[in-house]
Amino acid sequence: MMGPSASVLPFRTVTIIGVGLIGGSLGLALRRRQLARRVVGVGRRQAKLDRAVALGAIDEGTLSVAAGVRDAELVVLATPVGAMVELAREAARSVARGTLLTDVGSTKALLARELDALSAQGFRYVGSHPMAGSERQGVEEAQAGLFEGAVCFVTPTPHTEPRALAAVEELWQAVGARVRVLDPAKHDRLLAMASHLPHLVAAALVNALTPEALACAGSGFRDTTRVASGDPLMWADLCLQNRDRLLDALGALEAQLHTLRRILDDGAHADLRAWLQSAKAVRDSHLHP
Amino acid sequence: MMGPSASVLPFRTVTIIGVGLIGGSLGLALRRRQLARRVVGVGRRQAKLDRAVALGAIDEGTLSVAAGVRDAELVVLATPVGAMVELAREAARSVARGTLLTDVGSTKALLARELDALSAQGFRYVGSHPMAGSERQGVEEAQAGLFEGAVCFVTPTPHTEPRALAAVEELWQAVGARVRVLDPAKHDRLLAMASHLPHLVAAALVNALTPEALACAGSGFRDTTRVASGDPLMWADLCLQNRDRLLDALGALEAQLHTLRRILDDGAHADLRAWLQSAKAVRDSHLHP
Repeated sequence: MMGPSASVLPFRTVTIIGVGLIGGSLGLALRRRQLARRVVGVGRRQAKLDRAVALGAIDEGTLSVAAGVRDAELVVLATPVGAMVELAREAARSVARGTLLTDVGSTKALLARELDALSAQGFRYVGSHPMAGSERQGVEEAQAGLFEGAVCFVTPTPHTEPRALAAVEELWQAVGARVRVLDPAKHDRLLAMASHLPHLVAAALVNALTPEALACAGSGFRDTTRVASGDPLMWADLCLQNRDRLLDALGALEAQLHTLRRILDDGAHADLRAWLQSAKAVRDSHLHP
Repeated sequence: MMGPSASVLPFRTVTIIGVGLIGGSLGLALRRRQLARRVVGVGRRQAKLDRAVALGAIDEGTLSVAAGVRDAELVVLATPVGAMVELAREAARSVARGTLLTDVGSTKALLARELDALSAQGFRYVGSHPMAGSERQGVEEAQAGLFEGAVCFVTPTPHTEPRALAAVEELWQAVGARVRVLDPAKHDRLLAMASHLPHLVAAALVNALTPEALACAGSGFRDTTRVASGDPLMWADLCLQNRDRLLDALGALEAQLHTLRRILDDGAHADLRAWLQSAKAVRDSHLHP
């Protein structure tokens, strides 16, 4: 734990690479709460950066990673995870020694391996995964309060510098998140079950339906498949980064569907009721606060 | 189509067997809109019936099917589907010739077969399936506006009397539903995909997760599995009544998961992105009004 005197806040310059829903919301939160003197956005399209400035998510935007990170005390990667390693390497060539680096990706093990390696180039990396956002996309959807009450996983490794860890924890707490420290590999294993698998299953359900059946869908189907409206690039990236854990999670689901098929084949009412009751009891106790 | 002069409304006495969320909401809607002079509820527990009277869902309640249906112009079955055939047979012994019978079950083919057969005993049956309700249960959750804007399938057979069909259509339109007439077998095939399969998949997801993974679940998992908090008895009933179509639907999902596993095994980013894009495009166009 850090005493108040050790606070890193406010940051001088925070540079957010990728100013979409999450990056934009972080920028809004940092600026509204005066947690950074200056927020710089790095993007690939000037029009989007101008929009982010107009919305108050960043102070200024640039298309150049090198220019964007030059004065940064903290760099936040907020692109789809597949682009992060390359962007971090590019940024590492222009940052001052000791610059903090974090990210908001939904996978952590591969990033921990690749971005820890940038410490020789000056970055002090600590992975983050704020459980916020939705199937919506773009800085237009950004909200300063997006992280309030949300869980944010922070995923140090044996190489993580303790002060860097404390600073990243402080960042997320300052924007309202509840920090949970977790090993990157364990994070990926648990999130494969709790987030990546449900996403793929929702997409599988949509893809399994005929147009005629879709026309009969009600609110149940709408909720069950909501996440399938998420950004395909973002999800393809993270599902492949977390492929092995995801295949394990898929195996666990397939085992349940195998059980279900057997129960249906047998017409076993008591078994089906017990199987449904188990799901209801678990869900009601874990997910209804 | 019926002219206004042929309207069956208001009904003299409507008897609702099973006064839970759906039956209670229908009672509330009928009474508030003065679509019935008297609404009788039949249940298995007096305390629940008393509660339904207190909430204004029914005018009076009885534990006796025979007493409850004696004066009915319309009988509505609103119990789990597994109990409906027996209750309808019991009711048929006490109703006047020509009494309308409908139900609110989520499966239609078996009920059409069994309840059409009660025409010799005086019932004129037309199946209904209002797409309303949620994972919540009980008359306490009932709302007079539950059916407003909801789709209600009405499922006549070649044996259905045209005036009975028109009366049941008028009932649902009068409580605000949008009626869609559909063949019972086709209804069951489409709803297996659009409703029953998603329910079972949500339960399978919950059952596949370890407690540690459940503790990492966010709003995506919560929405994806919402329906798994539904009543296990109700869902076991209807899944087994619709077993063969459900096994077909499960097969279609398993085929999608097979495709997914192959894509993940291959690490095929473009294929995964296309598969996710397909789901997103379909969902966005069919389910975002």
